[in-house]
Amino acid sequence: MAARVKNCRIVLVRARNPLNIGAAARAMANFGFDDLMLVEPYAPSWQEAKSAVGAEALLKTARVVPAVAGAVEDRTLVIGTSSMQRRSGDFERVRLQELQARIRPGDKVALLFGSERTGLTNAEISHCHWMVRIPTVPGCPSMNLAQAVAVCCYELTRHSPTPRTAARPKPAPAGAIEKLREELDDVLRAADYIHAPGRPSDIVKLRRLLLRLNISSRDVATLRGMVAQLRWKLKL
Amino acid sequence: MAARVKNCRIVLVRARNPLNIGAAARAMANFGFDDLMLVEPYAPSWQEAKSAVGAEALLKTARVVPAVAGAVEDRTLVIGTSSMQRRSGDFERVRLQELQARIRPGDKVALLFGSERTGLTNAEISHCHWMVRIPTVPGCPSMNLAQAVAVCCYELTRHSPTPRTAARPKPAPAGAIEKLREELDDVLRAADYIHAPGRPSDIVKLRRLLLRLNISSRDVATLRGMVAQLRWKLKL
Repeated sequence: MAARVKNCRIVLVRARNPLNIGAAARAMANFGFDDLMLVEPYAPSWQEAKSAVGAEALLKTARVVPAVAGAVEDRTLVIGTSSMQRRSGDFERVRLQELQARIRPGDKVALLFGSERTGLTNAEISHCHWMVRIPTVPGCPSMNLAQAVAVCCYELTRHSPTPRTAARPKPAPAGAIEKLREELDDVLRAADYIHAPGRPSDIVKLRRLLLRLNISSRDVATLRGMVAQLRWKLKL
Repeated sequence: MAARVKNCRIVLVRARNPLNIGAAARAMANFGFDDLMLVEPYAPSWQEAKSAVGAEALLKTARVVPAVAGAVEDRTLVIGTSSMQRRSGDFERVRLQELQARIRPGDKVALLFGSERTGLTNAEISHCHWMVRIPTVPGCPSMNLAQAVAVCCYELTRHSPTPRTAARPKPAPAGAIEKLREELDDVLRAADYIHAPGRPSDIVKLRRLLLRLNISSRDVATLRGMVAQLRWKLKL
């Protein structure tokens, strides 16, 4: 799993809602980001977010600056975010899905999120090398601020090398499935589900059914245990 | 960008926070999802979420059911979500990044999110074909509910749909598998394979076994026919 994410700063510009600030910090922490800056936050909201019970540790180390320039001056790549289709065509737009591929090795990135109400202004956008667009639907394009942060942080760490989880269960060898089929065949015959003994078409049907189930080694043992108990009950 | 997302239901299980319910609905709407079900929501929270000013339209059409079974019975693929490393290794875990590739064409999906405090219980997880793990960092694994919904909805719509070839057998809906489980339970009890009636751990074990088998619609009918014949033979 991703360790700390280096060299990517999240910048909240004029955030107004303390719950959003706290939730954005939580999302950053979830995905291993620890560099948060706030540009001109609404002061009471920022106080409230910082002092909330259970506030994320990274809110304590977050820095506040009065303007976007101060949040991006040490960065080599400044990216604005937008869920909206902006009317102006004066900047390059990149799909969120392509974000990571566009970041060069060694880049120091700032990812800017505008205020809940207005997004980023044109002046703020002018600091950005380009804009990233979150692929929301036209009927409901505008995302909650903290959810936008969550989705971007997820996308930025999506490709980090992660150990594969959970080995697939070991498939049962055909011989064990065939044993299960024979035992089940006896039971089904005793229950009059199969009438004639050993009819080839019944054998084939049951075998194919069992093979379609992709039974694992462990499960074939369980199933044979069930069938054995049924054989005992039916006095076979 | 993606139009309405068909055939993927979001299921919130025992959600307690009205803001989370509202924010989850907003995230769904952002990414074009419109099928929301709630399992046993905390009643005052659900009332508050529904009646909030500016509540998402899809909260009006959301359905409430008393248990997970009711939310998944018409689904062919039931997926649980978890940010945590669960200790039990009894179910397959899939990385969120691989989620879309694992959904078969024609699948009717339910994506389950547990309560804010406890996540999904083992009994709830037993309804899932497998679990998806959101790749959060070990030091801060647990995501805000609505942000988890946002990240999953984003991932599900991240790739444009690629039609795939090869007619695979139509998967059985979860309700038919649950019927098979109940009928098989009777038979196994009559054969003394299961001793105490209705023990939750037996129910969970048998349900998980049947889900691992990935039974098709046609095969579930065949298997229920076999079990029906056994019930008749055992005079149940």
